[in-house]
Order: sequence, then C-alpha cells, then structure tokens
Amino acid sequence: MDPNAVSKAFVDHYYSTFDTNRPGLANLYQEASMLTFEGQQFQGAQNIAAKLANLPFQQCQHSITTVDCQPSGPAGGMLVFVSGNLQLAGEQHALKFSQLFHLIPTPQGSFYVQNDIFRLNYA
Amino acid sequence: MDPNAVSKAFVDHYYSTFDTNRPGLANLYQEASMLTFEGQQFQGAQNIAAKLANLPFQQCQHSITTVDCQPSGPAGGMLVFVSGNLQLAGEQHALKFSQLFHLIPTPQGSFYVQNDIFRLNYA
Repeated sequence: MDPNAVSKAFVDHYYSTFDTNRPGLANLYQEASMLTFEGQQFQGAQNIAAKLANLPFQQCQHSITTVDCQPSGPAGGMLVFVSGNLQLAGEQHALKFSQLFHLIPTPQGSFYVQNDIFRLNYA
Repeated sequence: MDPNAVSKAFVDHYYSTFDTNRPGLANLYQEASMLTFEGQQFQGAQNIAAKLANLPFQQCQHSITTVDCQPSGPAGGMLVFVSGNLQLAGEQHALKFSQLFHLIPTPQGSFYVQNDIFRLNYA
C-alpha cells in the first residue's frame, strides 16, 4: 500500500464523516486512543466521540490544504499531518486548523486513530 | 518523567539550537529519521541537517505559542505538536508555523527525533 494513498483516503473519510455523520467518528478510535483538542485531553473512543459531538457548532465543512505522512516506526503505524480550513454554517470566515493523526494498523487490515491532536491556527 | 516537562525541555532545546547553532541540530536526528519540510522529504541526520542549514535565511528567532504532547505507543515514544512564530532578521512580520516531532527514547536515557513534519501556516 502506498502510504500517501492510504493517508489521503483516511483524511477524506475522516472529514467527510465529521461533516455528515459526526457520531460515526467513534468507530475510528479505540479505548487507548487519545485526543488533545485545543489543549484539552480526552481518552477512549466514547469520550472522544462525545467531545466531538458536543462542539459548539452543528453544521460545518472541512476543506483540506495539505496532507503530509510518514511511517511512525517498525510497527506499521503512520503519522498524518493535515492543514485545512473549517467553515462553520453562518460564519463569514473559515477557521484555519492543523491536525495530527497517528494511525495504527488493525488485524482486519484497516487503521484506527491512536493519537489525535487538533489546533486552530490563530491569526 | 513528566511527559509535559520532557516535551517542553525538548522544544526549548530544539529551537534555541536552531536559532543559535543550527548545525548542532544534526545531533538530535539519527539515520532512520525523517523530515518533511513544506512537503519536501529528507531522510537521515546528515540530509536533514543539510536542509536546515541551507534554508534561505540565516538569522531567525522562534517563539512558541502552544506545545501538545501524547505518548505515541508502548515503546516510550512521544508525539510533540508545536505551534509558534518564526521571525526572520530584517522582516517585519513573523511567519506562523506548526511542527510535529516524534521522539524516541535512546539507550542513554535521552530522545532522538524519528519524525519531523514542518508546515508554515499561510494566512
């Protein structure tokens, strides 16, 4: 598998799920998964999905500017570093963000998100 | 060791070395290390240090806005996600950047940089 193709497919899937079916994101995390969202830490698929579901906006649309990926080590993990824009419904200006995903292969041949770090890029 | 303290110490050391003794950064990387700098990929301490030494500016000063860290897995690695400003000598406005480091423990009780992804945050 081409790591760039895998990370691109993951990123497309993640953000389209976020924008159209946010509760579905829970399936991408496991119990050991960690999210740091604007400095706040959450652990476990349920806590992470609850945080994402309860963000103070409903409709949103992500558009991706850059995706960089690197293998994280011998265990087959992958680091995916994303920059993009987050457009909230009713807001004039999009928010810029940077986000890191550390993907770990599953026995089923897919990946889950072990680490997730999200930061808005304040101007 | 407190992971937040370790990552803060690493970040202080990395950027002060960058700003005052850029060739010294080579010591923080190993042969398997990878750098993705604005989408360009480099592997190995020598290639990475050469890229950083040959950036099209000499004097610069980094100031750090946020540092987020998470353990990367059972092997004791650490993900450190940094946002900050890069002021180049003679330029009026600082550049905003985001950077990820994946630190791996060494047998000597220190860390080396296995993964490094750098992106400017364009306005």
